[in-house]
Amino acid sequence: MKTEKIPYKIYLSESEMPTAWYNLRADMKKKPAPLLNPATLQPMKAEELAGVFCEDLIAQELDNDTPFFEIPEEIRSFYKMYRPAPLVRAYCLEEKLGTPAKIYYKFEGNNTSGSHKLNSAIAQAYYAKKQGLKGVTTETGAGQWGTALSMACSYFDLDCKVYMVKCSYEQKPFRREVMRTYGASVTPSPSMETEVGNKILAEHPGTTGSLGCAISEAVEKAVTSDGYRYVLGSVLNQVLLHQSVIGLETKTALDKYGIKPDIIIGCAGGGSNLGGLIAPFMGEKLRGEADYRIIAVEPASCPSFTRGVYAYDFCDTGKVCPMAKMYTLGCDFIPSANHAGGLRYHGMSSTLSELYDQGLMEAVSVKQTDVFEAAEYFARIEGILPAPESSHAIRVAIDEALKCKETGEEKTIVFGLTGTGYFDMVAYEKFHDGEMSDYIPTDEELKAYRAKLPKVN
Amino acid sequence: MKTEKIPYKIYLSESEMPTAWYNLRADMKKKPAPLLNPATLQPMKAEELAGVFCEDLIAQELDNDTPFFEIPEEIRSFYKMYRPAPLVRAYCLEEKLGTPAKIYYKFEGNNTSGSHKLNSAIAQAYYAKKQGLKGVTTETGAGQWGTALSMACSYFDLDCKVYMVKCSYEQKPFRREVMRTYGASVTPSPSMETEVGNKILAEHPGTTGSLGCAISEAVEKAVTSDGYRYVLGSVLNQVLLHQSVIGLETKTALDKYGIKPDIIIGCAGGGSNLGGLIAPFMGEKLRGEADYRIIAVEPASCPSFTRGVYAYDFCDTGKVCPMAKMYTLGCDFIPSANHAGGLRYHGMSSTLSELYDQGLMEAVSVKQTDVFEAAEYFARIEGILPAPESSHAIRVAIDEALKCKETGEEKTIVFGLTGTGYFDMVAYEKFHDGEMSDYIPTDEELKAYRAKLPKVN
Repeated sequence: MKTEKIPYKIYLSESEMPTAWYNLRADMKKKPAPLLNPATLQPMKAEELAGVFCEDLIAQELDNDTPFFEIPEEIRSFYKMYRPAPLVRAYCLEEKLGTPAKIYYKFEGNNTSGSHKLNSAIAQAYYAKKQGLKGVTTETGAGQWGTALSMACSYFDLDCKVYMVKCSYEQKPFRREVMRTYGASVTPSPSMETEVGNKILAEHPGTTGSLGCAISEAVEKAVTSDGYRYVLGSVLNQVLLHQSVIGLETKTALDKYGIKPDIIIGCAGGGSNLGGLIAPFMGEKLRGEADYRIIAVEPASCPSFTRGVYAYDFCDTGKVCPMAKMYTLGCDFIPSANHAGGLRYHGMSSTLSELYDQGLMEAVSVKQTDVFEAAEYFARIEGILPAPESSHAIRVAIDEALKCKETGEEKTIVFGLTGTGYFDMVAYEKFHDGEMSDYIPTDEELKAYRAKLPKVN
Repeated sequence: MKTEKIPYKIYLSESEMPTAWYNLRADMKKKPAPLLNPATLQPMKAEELAGVFCEDLIAQELDNDTPFFEIPEEIRSFYKMYRPAPLVRAYCLEEKLGTPAKIYYKFEGNNTSGSHKLNSAIAQAYYAKKQGLKGVTTETGAGQWGTALSMACSYFDLDCKVYMVKCSYEQKPFRREVMRTYGASVTPSPSMETEVGNKILAEHPGTTGSLGCAISEAVEKAVTSDGYRYVLGSVLNQVLLHQSVIGLETKTALDKYGIKPDIIIGCAGGGSNLGGLIAPFMGEKLRGEADYRIIAVEPASCPSFTRGVYAYDFCDTGKVCPMAKMYTLGCDFIPSANHAGGLRYHGMSSTLSELYDQGLMEAVSVKQTDVFEAAEYFARIEGILPAPESSHAIRVAIDEALKCKETGEEKTIVFGLTGTGYFDMVAYEKFHDGEMSDYIPTDEELKAYRAKLPKVN
């Protein structure tokens, strides 16, 4: 352990960057439940997934045993353009809060996609290119994933087709424009381009779309287009694998200074950031080498962990995807229109769901006005304008630091600051103007969605 | 000289960060011309400036002899939140261009203000706080300076009043919203809040404002409000002093790896970034210790270096400010409405103007469609979406690298990447849609503005 003062920002050198992704599942005694083929209700085999996903990614998706996957040299080169991401000691925030807690955050916003999503986007684009594909399709909600994938595809000269949830497409023209800068084509979803889009539009003529809907369209487009596959920015095991680079860097940086966290906090929508951040720490926990409090933070308006059920469900609204066992609100659930930003998926990563079910992590939900209050507070003190998603973790990190203030405990808190909010100023404006409200679904609403879960459970 | 491979990003450690700003003027044999009092045509004395500027900043402004000013501890702490800025080796760009040139850029966009402007904003806010002021006033055009000052004032709990050029205020609601997040009040200029604003509105009822106009309003507001002073984000000597942190870090990073640049390139509007980037290199040049090609890049639509005259002129449209000797197009000059982004000031830093006049640096002007072409090309290859301003430097860096490709010379090129373009997507959209045009002022137009220069010359 070094005794020198811990700097504001801990940057690893390039030689300290991870050379392999860590597969958390390898250390789980009880593995996450497999994806099911909705027709046969049997676990999906690699060959059944081959029309949808890239080959190497399917192998990563289904592999519950290999602990490390080497990061290909081309991806490591790309990582070096924007990584290592700094682990920041929040000295100013600590001082302002007057807390004895020590607060660190892993900042993943220092790249043009504005979030951690690029870590997996570049990996997925690489494997698509390796397979000789022409391009990939995907969906995007808040727009971070679509932007990240556009950048990655541009780097590998792949075609990139993004279905963007219509309300987001209309409210965030600048997000769309960044994707165009990277050469992607962006279609508002639901669209007339797909059968499922036409069907949804016929049933709900005025709909502004949903993530589940856009997923269905992107999958259909991939499987019906020659030389295309579908890629996804969260939820899947392969995505958590790629995102382990966040946690591995965090752990190396902490170890360098002999710091052992007490609490690790991350926001959770589909689970990509949280799963990546906690990976090596949860690994130690699973192997009985160390213990940490791990907290998932989700929006009160889309509370899959805290108010969902652990059951098999469809991953998309159009029910064209395999079924996954996860904490879910039901695949028809769409968060209230006043919900700002991402973290709006109805389910949660199978891996994280299983870990949560085993009691290895906690979950809390927070109201969005409380989230934006924390966001603005943080921006003014730490000088980074956070994304609404990331601000969920900030909220709980501040709450935990304030508890330490009461008890006098010098806990070490690490949280994931997944990205920046430059494209979320409409939401900030609503907050400033006092026009932001909170919507928490009622028990009756949730019950109605739950009743529609597939019969397999 | 180290022989190890140069990393993609060179980050200094905190202990390697500059502890003093470098005052380039101290090494100039012929000093920049002094500010003149327009009433007496005599050099402005400190006491005459005291109603407008903060005391310590006036001392910095007028000091042509002290080579180094210690950076106060509070400012160094703030710098550590977002600095050191990386010096990036553009390996991907080099490869794509197929050039033997080695290209580096100093990236100043990794902070929420999105640009280098924060380096001086925090210094100016610090001195205002130290003097016990209530707040400061300023103007902003493209919005980067206003955002930076808002962040700095929020940190020191100072009131911040920003006059934002009206067309920019209307076209960039998100910029305005970021400033509000940091607690600043933002007024579209010209406004009814000031005498000069009323006067301008009476003379030009439909005007969408200009930078020169907004400066006049901000200065008037400062001198007529108790406990307020005016601060400016470019042009002034004090700003170049603070921005020397860019060049000092760049030089330390290059020296660490034994790299000696051949060409140093920066965009130039008022000169803050360029003056800061080149400071230590120009210092060596002035002292006869080394030689570098130094290139200022300006927009063809606002070509103060390349088509202006070196003369005394007003710094603002309302003529409430002192006069400065500089390369100028005339204080009534406003770039064509189709000009996107910043670099729209009619004049240029007195220090840089004097250096240019002495033949110690070059200047070129570039058309904005060529600039956006370079911006998009760079974004796709290097993964950073550049600000329109910064992209002027990218354009010329690429051009110089392509010349090396022709000649086979392995020149080392360093350029300043001042910031990101997240709030400039309207301009990118115009470029994508083929709706961006170039406007180059005619000789007759420039002659007409020049005829209105003050008689002192």
